[in-house]
Amino acid sequence: MRDFLPDDVRRRQYVIDVVRRVYERYGFEPLETPALENIETLTGKYGEEGNQLIFKVLKRGEGESSGVADLALRYDLTVPLARVVAEHRGKLPKFFKRYQIQPVWRADRPARGRFREFYQCDVDTIGSTSPVVEAEMIAAVSEVLQALGFEDFTVQVNHREFLRMLLSDAGIPESRHGDALIAIDKLDKIGADGVVADMAARGLSQESARAALENIEGAVDTLFAESSGWSTHPDGTATAAAENLLRIFTLCEATAARGHVKFTPRLARGLSYYTGAIMEIVVPDLPGSLGGGGRYDGLIGMFSGEPIPACGFSLGLERILVVMGERGMFPPDVQASGPDVLVTLFDAPSIPDSLRLAGELRGEGLRVEIYPEADKLGKQFKYASARNAAYVTILGADERARGEVTIKNMKTGDQTSVGREYAAQRIRTER
Amino acid sequence: MRDFLPDDVRRRQYVIDVVRRVYERYGFEPLETPALENIETLTGKYGEEGNQLIFKVLKRGEGESSGVADLALRYDLTVPLARVVAEHRGKLPKFFKRYQIQPVWRADRPARGRFREFYQCDVDTIGSTSPVVEAEMIAAVSEVLQALGFEDFTVQVNHREFLRMLLSDAGIPESRHGDALIAIDKLDKIGADGVVADMAARGLSQESARAALENIEGAVDTLFAESSGWSTHPDGTATAAAENLLRIFTLCEATAARGHVKFTPRLARGLSYYTGAIMEIVVPDLPGSLGGGGRYDGLIGMFSGEPIPACGFSLGLERILVVMGERGMFPPDVQASGPDVLVTLFDAPSIPDSLRLAGELRGEGLRVEIYPEADKLGKQFKYASARNAAYVTILGADERARGEVTIKNMKTGDQTSVGREYAAQRIRTER
Repeated sequence: MRDFLPDDVRRRQYVIDVVRRVYERYGFEPLETPALENIETLTGKYGEEGNQLIFKVLKRGEGESSGVADLALRYDLTVPLARVVAEHRGKLPKFFKRYQIQPVWRADRPARGRFREFYQCDVDTIGSTSPVVEAEMIAAVSEVLQALGFEDFTVQVNHREFLRMLLSDAGIPESRHGDALIAIDKLDKIGADGVVADMAARGLSQESARAALENIEGAVDTLFAESSGWSTHPDGTATAAAENLLRIFTLCEATAARGHVKFTPRLARGLSYYTGAIMEIVVPDLPGSLGGGGRYDGLIGMFSGEPIPACGFSLGLERILVVMGERGMFPPDVQASGPDVLVTLFDAPSIPDSLRLAGELRGEGLRVEIYPEADKLGKQFKYASARNAAYVTILGADERARGEVTIKNMKTGDQTSVGREYAAQRIRTER
Repeated sequence: MRDFLPDDVRRRQYVIDVVRRVYERYGFEPLETPALENIETLTGKYGEEGNQLIFKVLKRGEGESSGVADLALRYDLTVPLARVVAEHRGKLPKFFKRYQIQPVWRADRPARGRFREFYQCDVDTIGSTSPVVEAEMIAAVSEVLQALGFEDFTVQVNHREFLRMLLSDAGIPESRHGDALIAIDKLDKIGADGVVADMAARGLSQESARAALENIEGAVDTLFAESSGWSTHPDGTATAAAENLLRIFTLCEATAARGHVKFTPRLARGLSYYTGAIMEIVVPDLPGSLGGGGRYDGLIGMFSGEPIPACGFSLGLERILVVMGERGMFPPDVQASGPDVLVTLFDAPSIPDSLRLAGELRGEGLRVEIYPEADKLGKQFKYASARNAAYVTILGADERARGEVTIKNMKTGDQTSVGREYAAQRIRTER
């Protein structure tokens, strides 16, 4: 786990502020949940592997010695949302659009862009099955990335039920879909023959392996060609899935996502709770994704008893930061730290007046640091330089007698005296 | 632990934004530390009682069944800061002024304004023993409270060593100072005789009890009167403490804290790591304090090996929110939620165009929600009303043919059609 020093926090805060601003404009509202959930709320929601990665908290009092854990650290933002919706249903609007930007914890082995404590930026819409929900969500995350300066991202979109049809039609039973997809995912790297061999090694027949690959590779044509025949496919769920996908693509063309959406038939998404459209955002220079999501119409029902449709998307703050850092995408003022002004202390008697000067400059909105001791001026200037201060003020006996202050521009080295009341104005104009 | 629904988050975010803005203007820089610390970092730093309140996290893998805890949840923001300073000393400026706004966790019994997960807003200055540090800190928290609309707050200030002198001079040994202070703290409630009785019940002699009370009650005169004689007191540490206090008060008069600072001789502060000035902020209508702090020149040395002076102040976000809520201090736009515009869907064919309209309005900075389904208009209006939307747009066949959009002001009920390109402008002007 990591400490974030000031320059780190500034970059994180910049991205979070952009995400928040865009999500607010899309009508999403902020939600925050506690870091600790009851352990039963989390267990059984993330699969066997996920269970292992949950941080568990010892019960207090006697529990501490007995080793019993009753609380656990938030593992994602989706399960807490489902709990909140079930718990506070009466207080929430019919369509609840929320965003949530908070850390989650996983007892994972750290790697590049993967940490045991990391922030997720989630948007979810609860209460509607309309494809407008998916389109709006894809538009919102696209606009976040555009506002951060990304142009080359792709929103990969698929549908759980359409994918199921492609594999089932190839004769692969549902219980083996997971194995098939792991192999198919390597297509770009190892080619079609490699994938067939891999599937065979996993105990799938060569024929169904080739057929599945063919179905996946031909899926774009299958979906978009009028004559492809999916509309008369006997599997009604798959037919509805295809219609749903086509509708989402049409709607996306009317949004900020236009030109960024790509039907990606082999996209599977790991988590098991998705029931409809699934999506993932990728950029060329990062293995893995910047975020992903999908429709999960069954999860909330696990908490509330009644089925409530939902669709969500999670952006990974840490991965966005990694790519932005490597590409140098942060605006200059986010990178440059340092105060606008360092107020030096000339001597002991002048200190109260220097504090007053600092107050005046802060009142004008400037970021002002005071050197805390009446050290030698040379030492104070050296510190100002190390702190990357833009200006330094000197308030000596002469200046005080004249009601003036000497201002030094640390970049140009220029030094001038101005009336106290004009100091802030002078600094702001020059900057 | 609590869920924060949208209206709650908005209020919290408003206060946090004000705190951050003021602290930045004072030259404090942001720091963030992980929620989980190694358990040894925290144990032994908060006294016996504190140790009991630390949430402990089970070791992963085999540790889970053995019940061994190796990590613990952040208990305050001061100890993690001390660890960071020791760990990153070379990367930090000579005077490190940091602020940190993050949650901490204590396994405490919840009460009014006291929770098991709560936010602290800390400022600390590392590296200087100058009283300018204390004055700046008191000024910064005063300005935060003023920016939030507080006028009636008092910054109580005392000094650990001056307090020690007052009690020792009364013949109370240092080991009994804690007991004496618990009794003296009740002075307002139970009167002088009550306090003496309480101290006697705690095994202190009546004479020293009366003397201590006298010293505490007379301390204001003792400190400020030229003739009081503390300057010739044989205890040099106490004399330095008095000088330090007087200097801090003088400096505060030159800052935003002017008129809010009060020498409070019986202020003790619970935590044991303070070594110099101590402070607490109170308002008349809240028992306890809105925050507190002080100088702790010894703590960082526990991590770094070398003594490094430090002074800090912690504002309690939850308590500030309680008082602001009870007094109705939040600005109207923080309280009123709801989107600027609800875009209705007239029929299926118009949906892409309605998405485009939403995009145009968002491009102008408006917060826009789309009703996700082409329901009956009456139902959509009802929803807009429940969501507290300021405006509703209707984009029917007629409007689309004319390149217009109908806008309804939900407050006045007025409904007009305008050209699409003027829609955002119209809404912004009317608001």
